[in-house]
Amino acid sequence: MSMKNQIAVIGVGCTKFGDLFDQGYEDLICDAAFQAYDDAGIDPAEIEAGYLGTYMPGPSGGKASVSLGDALRLYDRPITRVENYCATGTDAFRNGCMAIASGTYDVVLVLGAEKLKDRGGRGLPRFGHPLLAKGNSAPGLFALAANRYMHTFGVGRETLAKVAVKNHYNGARNPKAHLRSEVTEEKVLAAPMISSPFGLFDCCPTTDGAAAAILCRADLAAKYTDAPIWVKGVGLSVTSGRPYYDPTFDYLGFRSTSNASKQAYDMAGIAASDIDFAEVHDCFTWTEVSNIEDLGFCAKGEAPGWIAEGRTSLSGDLPINPSGGLKSFGHPIGASGVRMIYETTEQLRGNCGERQIADAHLGLAHNVGGPGAVSCVIVLGNEK
Amino acid sequence: MSMKNQIAVIGVGCTKFGDLFDQGYEDLICDAAFQAYDDAGIDPAEIEAGYLGTYMPGPSGGKASVSLGDALRLYDRPITRVENYCATGTDAFRNGCMAIASGTYDVVLVLGAEKLKDRGGRGLPRFGHPLLAKGNSAPGLFALAANRYMHTFGVGRETLAKVAVKNHYNGARNPKAHLRSEVTEEKVLAAPMISSPFGLFDCCPTTDGAAAAILCRADLAAKYTDAPIWVKGVGLSVTSGRPYYDPTFDYLGFRSTSNASKQAYDMAGIAASDIDFAEVHDCFTWTEVSNIEDLGFCAKGEAPGWIAEGRTSLSGDLPINPSGGLKSFGHPIGASGVRMIYETTEQLRGNCGERQIADAHLGLAHNVGGPGAVSCVIVLGNEK
Repeated sequence: MSMKNQIAVIGVGCTKFGDLFDQGYEDLICDAAFQAYDDAGIDPAEIEAGYLGTYMPGPSGGKASVSLGDALRLYDRPITRVENYCATGTDAFRNGCMAIASGTYDVVLVLGAEKLKDRGGRGLPRFGHPLLAKGNSAPGLFALAANRYMHTFGVGRETLAKVAVKNHYNGARNPKAHLRSEVTEEKVLAAPMISSPFGLFDCCPTTDGAAAAILCRADLAAKYTDAPIWVKGVGLSVTSGRPYYDPTFDYLGFRSTSNASKQAYDMAGIAASDIDFAEVHDCFTWTEVSNIEDLGFCAKGEAPGWIAEGRTSLSGDLPINPSGGLKSFGHPIGASGVRMIYETTEQLRGNCGERQIADAHLGLAHNVGGPGAVSCVIVLGNEK
Repeated sequence: MSMKNQIAVIGVGCTKFGDLFDQGYEDLICDAAFQAYDDAGIDPAEIEAGYLGTYMPGPSGGKASVSLGDALRLYDRPITRVENYCATGTDAFRNGCMAIASGTYDVVLVLGAEKLKDRGGRGLPRFGHPLLAKGNSAPGLFALAANRYMHTFGVGRETLAKVAVKNHYNGARNPKAHLRSEVTEEKVLAAPMISSPFGLFDCCPTTDGAAAAILCRADLAAKYTDAPIWVKGVGLSVTSGRPYYDPTFDYLGFRSTSNASKQAYDMAGIAASDIDFAEVHDCFTWTEVSNIEDLGFCAKGEAPGWIAEGRTSLSGDLPINPSGGLKSFGHPIGASGVRMIYETTEQLRGNCGERQIADAHLGLAHNVGGPGAVSCVIVLGNEK
């Protein structure tokens, strides 16, 4: 049986994202989880299983599941850590859904958490495969694809800048976002270059944060809320994303995103055009451009036109990243996907105030990592 | 609906374990996976989803799911990395089972892999919580509990030595084991001390290896085999295992193992006494002593008597670690749990030659990490 409408999101929580030097990994976990407990009106004792999405667990380098247990005193229950690169948070959510749908548990906590700002000498590991030359960084790798795309479709840096302007605008209206300042297109274009074509404002920041979601079996949702949010579809896809492994990779977009979204749409029984808004993985401004196409909202090469016309703004017909996105909200790796579930849920509930999207019934959350090697897509809705 | 009898193991594979300096991470993945493909008689294209259990992914420190995809060219499909400390392999298997039981996939590959021998400067991360003093190692932490246990129950190092002698005896009969030499009780007792009461032969070695299992929906099993092995029950439990977090921890055994086994027995509808043999997590000889009790085979303090009477030997009434265990087979962290699934499956099929257990119908695989903070238990059977 398909998981569609079998799982309800009954509570969500999210910390303020930012440079949280005064809060540890376990502090962030507690903040997010207790917000979700309060939101669901649930006694923590009712949580039957946990999923933790974290890319680089605490300072000891392991025992992530135990860290979640210790932080929340969530003992004598199963807790699994899921890691799937930048798709860690959404994949933790996907596995939490399957754990309930399997009939094994009724109520599951999914929590994404990451501390990136004060890791001392550990820092981010080197990206990529050992076959790749040393020194390749996330901006450098995504820039390869951005340059190819911009060359092929005759797109300039102005298109990228419009994504930054929009996402900073949205994030400035989000009290939990990391970077809450608006920026102008001129400022974005004049910023120092990080890895051409990405200037400083084309890159998401390095951020600490955590987010949580509580899921339950559909028939139990009414016990906790009269407005559950339903899991409509989930998808995950891995591909190489490296041309020397996969000569069909054209550097114009990410096949893993197309695959994952197709899985999710098929489960939900919808088409891409049924989605009302999306939280997508804008680690760099260009990534959002590509995601809009890879998720099937428009054809390859058409997203720049949509962006120029304002169709992806808060008041457009397909708002993208109403939260501010990774660009403004920040990107604590394992937390980001669950934070997207938080935003999508709050939008579907109509709780987003100044950045609320009108008439939102189907929302999508999307992570991509790799670059492009792994993507996860979750579709949520507020009607059964 | 319970997962009992809903999932079939239709193929397993396992590399030779050892100091595999001439094989990389992806080589090991291929070796284990293709053995499992051949064993199941399955076309790799039929694999719908993958689960990778790995504690420390390849040299780049991430992208584990992509490594599995690249090694096997298993593209355009979902692959999730599960990490749960020393319970990584069995928890990957547990999540693979739930993915099928959720109705999302019909055929899933579970693969555990770890390279521990040639990690250069990266090595094993420091164990434990930052509150623990630096320098604590796995032998040191497990030794704390072993000493408490031996003091409380008046047990000497001779009991520990008997575990080493038995597991080396079994491993000497296993062509894939890392350490294939038999040892005498005298040799074990005279070996250099690592962390009292553990001498060299009380500790499992540091090992490279990988193992794989292919699972499918019960009603599809007949397509692949006329002797499927059935998943009877699974369990996972996290607890602190640290007395300053959990003052009830008495250092005499691991509550996480008791909890996880109770979950698995309940799902299987059996009692501990129904188990015919078990692969348990003997990272140190004392851990096996404690596991026998924590899994409910006998009361706390009784395992030393069982061991002395030979009840846990290959010809005893409850053979423990017929494979040779971590002690002799080796312990590549994420691979170990799946390797136990391999051994349990092969024993239930009657394929184990010199180390075959007579009349085996229900077998158990068990990982514990932490020390004691997380445990996972899987029960398999050869009758529906």
